[in-house]
Amino acid sequence: MAKIKEVSGSICAPAGFKAAGMHCGIKKEKKDLALIVSEAPASAAAVYTTNVVKAAPITVTMEHLADGKARGIIANSGNANACVVGGQEAAEKMCELAAAQLGLLAEDFAVASTGVIGQSLDIGPIASSIGELAGMLSHSAQSAAEAIMTTDTFDKQAACEIEIGAKTVRIGGIAKGSGMIHPNMATMLAFITTDANIGPELLSEILSQDAQDSFNMLSVDGDTSTNDMCAVLANGMAGNDPIQKGSAEEEAFRQGLGFVTKKLARLIAEDGEGATKLLTVKVTGAESKEQARAIAKSIVSSSLVKTAMFGNDANWGRILCAAGYAGVSFPVDRTKISISSEHGSVVVAQNGMQVLFDEAEALKALQAKEVIVDFSLGSGQESAEAWGCDLSYDYVKINGSYRT
Amino acid sequence: MAKIKEVSGSICAPAGFKAAGMHCGIKKEKKDLALIVSEAPASAAAVYTTNVVKAAPITVTMEHLADGKARGIIANSGNANACVVGGQEAAEKMCELAAAQLGLLAEDFAVASTGVIGQSLDIGPIASSIGELAGMLSHSAQSAAEAIMTTDTFDKQAACEIEIGAKTVRIGGIAKGSGMIHPNMATMLAFITTDANIGPELLSEILSQDAQDSFNMLSVDGDTSTNDMCAVLANGMAGNDPIQKGSAEEEAFRQGLGFVTKKLARLIAEDGEGATKLLTVKVTGAESKEQARAIAKSIVSSSLVKTAMFGNDANWGRILCAAGYAGVSFPVDRTKISISSEHGSVVVAQNGMQVLFDEAEALKALQAKEVIVDFSLGSGQESAEAWGCDLSYDYVKINGSYRT
Repeated sequence: MAKIKEVSGSICAPAGFKAAGMHCGIKKEKKDLALIVSEAPASAAAVYTTNVVKAAPITVTMEHLADGKARGIIANSGNANACVVGGQEAAEKMCELAAAQLGLLAEDFAVASTGVIGQSLDIGPIASSIGELAGMLSHSAQSAAEAIMTTDTFDKQAACEIEIGAKTVRIGGIAKGSGMIHPNMATMLAFITTDANIGPELLSEILSQDAQDSFNMLSVDGDTSTNDMCAVLANGMAGNDPIQKGSAEEEAFRQGLGFVTKKLARLIAEDGEGATKLLTVKVTGAESKEQARAIAKSIVSSSLVKTAMFGNDANWGRILCAAGYAGVSFPVDRTKISISSEHGSVVVAQNGMQVLFDEAEALKALQAKEVIVDFSLGSGQESAEAWGCDLSYDYVKINGSYRT
Repeated sequence: MAKIKEVSGSICAPAGFKAAGMHCGIKKEKKDLALIVSEAPASAAAVYTTNVVKAAPITVTMEHLADGKARGIIANSGNANACVVGGQEAAEKMCELAAAQLGLLAEDFAVASTGVIGQSLDIGPIASSIGELAGMLSHSAQSAAEAIMTTDTFDKQAACEIEIGAKTVRIGGIAKGSGMIHPNMATMLAFITTDANIGPELLSEILSQDAQDSFNMLSVDGDTSTNDMCAVLANGMAGNDPIQKGSAEEEAFRQGLGFVTKKLARLIAEDGEGATKLLTVKVTGAESKEQARAIAKSIVSSSLVKTAMFGNDANWGRILCAAGYAGVSFPVDRTKISISSEHGSVVVAQNGMQVLFDEAEALKALQAKEVIVDFSLGSGQESAEAWGCDLSYDYVKINGSYRT
């Protein structure tokens, strides 16, 4: 394992990155426009929603990052710029406005939008505020982290420091989540910066693989949105020799990136719409990584498991049942399920059947801000972890009248 | 189209079937034991849960129906007889008890259980009541339909009459649903009877195909249980010549069966846990049946669509979005979405984008006991229909403390 040191500053922790966020007028009062810029040209890579219906900023960013290079990211919240006439033009215009302020090319900007689907994005407020926003660029990530939030109740930031070839490399990220978060990206935005020196191809490969174990293991409500994106910019300012594929340096970079993305994923799960607790599902003893991931995702996504968590009910039958419809087979008679938290740990089922357990102890374990379900398959050495949250009255309340 | 006439009497509408239901003591007060018997030997077929975790009654029924013959069905509610030591023995014992009362073979009984997972099924109350239950067998299906209910708020029955080779053939069914209902069978039980003369192989083939368009197009909460089963008995007492594969008679039988199973599926959706309305999704203009089914299921299963329905919100963006992650591709720019009910019909999106619509009219259409979402793909001639319900506060309430 590489030595990973957590640091503050998120996207502005790596050398050469500035950020800013402000209220431009898409939302009524809250911050709704964010800008992230690298002082030096950067390798760029991104992973996108798998939804057939892709918002305009997704297709524009795909084009802009096709050459593996970028200088910045412009993002708004309050409007998803999805499923509207003129969406493409608006997304391009956002890049042009940002680039013009900084003497850069529009093609070197990624663009992201999050918010309501199907309402035209008025470019006016963005055009009239972009000068002010560019003037606010600083080494603080706070306002940008806030400006990408929608129904999020807190901003999500993470950063770490690793050693690569005797150089100190930093990786930082901000994210927004809340509604519609599900494996394979949802209305989730994550922007990662690093001062590592790494080529775009390897960066893209590492990001895609990392997402399988971070953002794609995240589920709030099973819906996958039209606007999701995780983009990473690597500007090389740490001064390390270019990271080579298959090297120890690559492995260190993977671990650093994983530290940041997994932390952001957990923060998103914790802040799921209406969530009262973070649910972590750890599958161990699997025959393959795919089997472990499928079962972990299935359990963490089950509405019945989620409501049981909300009700502090150690309903292991629902957990086993959700594993059973994950689409992968496993020997039920070797399984073991335990529920744990900072308040204790209780084995609730073994060999596919109930074991006698103390209901009071189980209740105590369940009454915590983070509950961990350990699901052991007893078949192999592979494991996976997924994050979600409970399903509460407030989820229904928030989503019963979001648009109106 | 065959001429289908709806009749009353459900499973006792076809000639030669008797049924009974009673309270034996598995539940505190409500009916919990049901028996269905055919006077004559019957062809038998069933479809089962796809969950890797299968309850004991499922495996026992699979064995008993392997020869394509059966005489009856014994079922209990209140306990799922799943994931417990001795489950297999208890399920076998239920068949033996029923068979002994009627001078039949245990191997000629299907057995089903529904209720809590992971608690041992006490055979005592069943053993001491089976004599009384056998004595209650009559041509009324009512008590049996009630005895298989769990959190269902009403019993579910359907029957119809068709002409096959100048003979009147009847098909009837009862079902229970409520929680954990999802495509590919969930804690859903459906028992179908018919006096048609049809061999077990063709019966099995027709049932499997029918389930694709009836019970498997049903979603209440995305969970697929360990105990689901739809079993059909055909005793031939209508006196028709055996139905031949590929004949007009087969087609008439398919349509009659579909009438019964689709009606039961809709009743289950309407009675989803906490549901305030039935949601019907009709996908048309698809290139293939599979594409149509996948999109219909994805929309009807979306938590965000379901909460929007609960909130009477014409949130077409969520509908389009759910179609987009159905796992099949389609040209977004040819889609058209409308929302309708007995109170009117409103086109809410076209060509993948919002159309101007009257919010008051949309609200009016949404405020109904059944809301229909029409999703047109504009690409081909295939269609599919799926049924579900809205996601309400009560769903969370019911499922937050089911076990405790």
